[in-house]
Amino acid sequence: MKDPRLQVIVHAENIASADVSIEYPGIALENVHKVENPNYLILDLKISPECRAGTFHITLSGETNTGNGRRSSLKKFSQAIPYELRSRSDFVKAQGADASDLVYLLLPDRFANGDPSNDRFVGLADSKVDRTNPFLRHGGDLQGVIDHLDYFKELGVTALWLNPVIENDQPLTDEGGELRSAYHGYGFTDHYQVDKRLGGNEAYKKLVDAAHANGLKIIQDAVYNHAGINHWLLRDMPDKNWLHQWPTYTNTSYKEQPIPDPHGSDLDRKVTSDGWFVPFLPDWNQGNPYVANYLLQHALWTVEYFGIDAWRVDTYMYNDLDYMNRVNSALLAEYPDLHIFGENWTKSVPNQAYFQENNLQVPFKSNLPGACDFQTYYAINDALNQKFGWDEGVNRIYQTLGLDYLYRDPMKNVVFLDNHDTDRFLSVVGENMNNYRMGLIWLLTTRGIPQLYYGTEILMKNFKNPSDAEVRRDFPGGFPDDKVNKFIETGRNGAENEAFDFVKKLANYRKNTPALHSGKLMQFVPADGVYVYFRYDEEKTIMVVMNSNDKSFSLETGRFQERLGTFARAVDVLSGLVHPLDKPINLEARTAYVLELGN
Amino acid sequence: MKDPRLQVIVHAENIASADVSIEYPGIALENVHKVENPNYLILDLKISPECRAGTFHITLSGETNTGNGRRSSLKKFSQAIPYELRSRSDFVKAQGADASDLVYLLLPDRFANGDPSNDRFVGLADSKVDRTNPFLRHGGDLQGVIDHLDYFKELGVTALWLNPVIENDQPLTDEGGELRSAYHGYGFTDHYQVDKRLGGNEAYKKLVDAAHANGLKIIQDAVYNHAGINHWLLRDMPDKNWLHQWPTYTNTSYKEQPIPDPHGSDLDRKVTSDGWFVPFLPDWNQGNPYVANYLLQHALWTVEYFGIDAWRVDTYMYNDLDYMNRVNSALLAEYPDLHIFGENWTKSVPNQAYFQENNLQVPFKSNLPGACDFQTYYAINDALNQKFGWDEGVNRIYQTLGLDYLYRDPMKNVVFLDNHDTDRFLSVVGENMNNYRMGLIWLLTTRGIPQLYYGTEILMKNFKNPSDAEVRRDFPGGFPDDKVNKFIETGRNGAENEAFDFVKKLANYRKNTPALHSGKLMQFVPADGVYVYFRYDEEKTIMVVMNSNDKSFSLETGRFQERLGTFARAVDVLSGLVHPLDKPINLEARTAYVLELGN
Repeated sequence: MKDPRLQVIVHAENIASADVSIEYPGIALENVHKVENPNYLILDLKISPECRAGTFHITLSGETNTGNGRRSSLKKFSQAIPYELRSRSDFVKAQGADASDLVYLLLPDRFANGDPSNDRFVGLADSKVDRTNPFLRHGGDLQGVIDHLDYFKELGVTALWLNPVIENDQPLTDEGGELRSAYHGYGFTDHYQVDKRLGGNEAYKKLVDAAHANGLKIIQDAVYNHAGINHWLLRDMPDKNWLHQWPTYTNTSYKEQPIPDPHGSDLDRKVTSDGWFVPFLPDWNQGNPYVANYLLQHALWTVEYFGIDAWRVDTYMYNDLDYMNRVNSALLAEYPDLHIFGENWTKSVPNQAYFQENNLQVPFKSNLPGACDFQTYYAINDALNQKFGWDEGVNRIYQTLGLDYLYRDPMKNVVFLDNHDTDRFLSVVGENMNNYRMGLIWLLTTRGIPQLYYGTEILMKNFKNPSDAEVRRDFPGGFPDDKVNKFIETGRNGAENEAFDFVKKLANYRKNTPALHSGKLMQFVPADGVYVYFRYDEEKTIMVVMNSNDKSFSLETGRFQERLGTFARAVDVLSGLVHPLDKPINLEARTAYVLELGN
Repeated sequence: MKDPRLQVIVHAENIASADVSIEYPGIALENVHKVENPNYLILDLKISPECRAGTFHITLSGETNTGNGRRSSLKKFSQAIPYELRSRSDFVKAQGADASDLVYLLLPDRFANGDPSNDRFVGLADSKVDRTNPFLRHGGDLQGVIDHLDYFKELGVTALWLNPVIENDQPLTDEGGELRSAYHGYGFTDHYQVDKRLGGNEAYKKLVDAAHANGLKIIQDAVYNHAGINHWLLRDMPDKNWLHQWPTYTNTSYKEQPIPDPHGSDLDRKVTSDGWFVPFLPDWNQGNPYVANYLLQHALWTVEYFGIDAWRVDTYMYNDLDYMNRVNSALLAEYPDLHIFGENWTKSVPNQAYFQENNLQVPFKSNLPGACDFQTYYAINDALNQKFGWDEGVNRIYQTLGLDYLYRDPMKNVVFLDNHDTDRFLSVVGENMNNYRMGLIWLLTTRGIPQLYYGTEILMKNFKNPSDAEVRRDFPGGFPDDKVNKFIETGRNGAENEAFDFVKKLANYRKNTPALHSGKLMQFVPADGVYVYFRYDEEKTIMVVMNSNDKSFSLETGRFQERLGTFARAVDVLSGLVHPLDKPINLEARTAYVLELGN
């Protein structure tokens, strides 16, 4: 690695007074740190460039106090702990993700159960599995994802973003009398173990390799901000200050404003950053150098060991932002092609831009390359749900993209219609198929990296009310006892096949059309309820027309001369129909068109 | 002047072929330009530093063709046109305006008629005056403003912004069958003449001098973007390209987005900038160098001749923005203390910031120091009209100010509750006096330069529906035949006196409290419907508490320790009541408090 340092946390009973030695060519033990808790030693190693792969031993020796205070006696001990030092991996990894990709977000527990033998383990804090209960685990796993790589390929997907796969050995929590499991995966309990209910490290490695072999990328969902309450480091805490501590329990305000606000108060900033996300997700103190190293090294290890291609960073804005810059720098220094995008769930473009690379002259400069684009998410939903008005309807999406000058590179943002934390898109647009198609056409032709949420392509729906679990239902056909299988054509009904085929056709067109990846965007002021934009490069020009009106509209093309140039006709990518460009284009009510221009 | 150049437009019949000469020590005639229209010559003069004040003559001589084509005959002519070159003025001028000021915006035709002899002039395109018709002129004038300087002083006002005073010799326009006059003043017909119905240049000069003698500043309302259709330069146009020309009449889209939008089209940008504001306000082509000089020299002359202190620039974003940078630079080079703020009526903080000095790394950088702050205007109205919610109610004003990092200096923005183009504040807040007081307390204690709209202090109200004229009614008592006079205590009813005294007390407290001018702002995340912020400097700390709830609230003070420090008590500036700070402060329903902290 470019950085030769390695910090190792050694945890065993009462080892603080032990002498530590390592004898291995090329490894220097530079420091041994003690913390408050005598069960820990923290070692700073330096690995020289000449160091060879192999197993070295960390030898701990000394005398330890046994028994109680009065009857204590000293006992000599010596223990050699093996530590495997591997060669750099040479498989495909850290390919990044960019606007040529189509990302598919899925929740491993809810997607497909490829290995029922790993559904439950006695001895874990939560050993329940019950598909009839929306809050308990359902048994989905990584083998289930591997089993459907062909499905993704058929659909036109090129990258998978899985909700976190790391061990969540969390107890069930009682929320208003309802027992809830950590099936969502955001409470890590051992960073170096993929949850064995998902198949463990082996299954994850197998998934990444199989995905790569099939031309699919893997995006890891990272959580630096907090841990699961059952994390082994917290069950026997090295030091109180490994977590953000408060006199009484303090939740984050979930308000981003105090961070960029030049008029903000220190206390409000601290509450946002250092307040806990929820009581069962303790907030790491990234100002603690050991915590900082632990999280950072794990990130590097993950890329190197599993070969993941990109990172989605959970609850980004609640982290110590200087620390996150350090993590991003370290990852990008080792893996320059990696893409990193963060969840900054704000409701204004400037505040979203603030937390990523931007065009703002502000004292703090983020180096986060991209973000989940919540601003276009809100805008496209408004575009489809509001009547056209001065600032409403399709003007919302036009205006939001018009603020792209605030981002360093808006192409690195991940655009989406829904995700695991939102109402499902189909329900948001009133289960109206015209709206559904307009939204998906926008998603697959606008700027940035499009992300689908699992099941959108087969018309999965629901609002979060009464609970998040409603939008995290099982993919029908992913589980052994499923009566229908919507992964295959014969398992889907007519409407579902129509939707699936629509997404598949558009996604595959997109996949083969670089103008929709790296081409420029030009958008025109929406007029008469019609929003027109172009994606174009030297090879191709794609015209997208969205008629948001409840009636048909005859679109004069003169206004768009700047992009139409000498093109004579437009081919409708979905229907194959040809429109001559010297005449008005007839638009059906509430319909969007993807038109490839030609002569 | 720092810039020694002077461009003079000479207009007389058929003078294009004349020889031009100027004989005056220190004046060089550097260029004589012809334009398409033979009735013009444009002269470039250079005034040397040694040049003395006096009257020089522009001598035109030559032969001119008289009669028609066949029977034409040449006739010799020679004409000497006097031009007065004055010494630099030495009176007070260009003082600027800043957050220590309280600006009072008034519409001269509707405020007070101090000289009924100038109400109408036969021979002007519009010679009607009729107070019973909301769309015709009412006879208000500059003498009427001069007559009420004591009123402004009593109220605590320190600066007057008058809607434009320049000649509007515009015809009545027929808008939907209704004849409308140019009483608002935005259609200039001769830049170098103040409208004689307002009292002409003499009255304006008298007003500025009298205002300065009384410690009041004068802000000029400038219009660079367009002219009145009757402007003398347009009645006999030098060249077609002095205006933005279109194949068919093209209105601006009024959309700002195409200007900053990195995805915007050239045509949309051109429509925004070069489209006409309305058919009777032709759009100057500032790309024409003569137009550019004409408007720029007039701006410099206005400061030098009248002694105005600051500029409000109308329809700023529709101008040629590079040209506006040139105008601003030229004004600030000659008058460094001048303040300039523009009308950029957008609905997003970034797009407002884009058109003024900002913290954006964008290709075009505006040098406009400040703006009419439409974003806080929208926010305070929402704050008072919406129920408290995650992004609603007082959170709107908190969130909007939280984006101040986009401005270079938000203190230079002019904050307001209403103006001549909006619904009147009292109507917007449902004529509810609690809301009225909360709004005014915010206006007079937040950051920036506060601006009152005439009559707000005496409870003038109305929505713009059915027309703008509804919010531009006459100030009662300003006109000779008025039965009541609300400039004086005995003319106001109880509620009006209560409002007037409230504004007066707060404005005068503000006037004498530098912490409310240049002091820093610190705002806390609104909680439980209560918004708390502080203005503070080394001398004083002012705590403002706004309880937006419909019921009383007991405010714990612990959260504000960062600003409360060792202060022991808070004195309510309006009531004189003293609150000890070690106990909760009891807040009445829908009430704001201005509390000066002390020991």
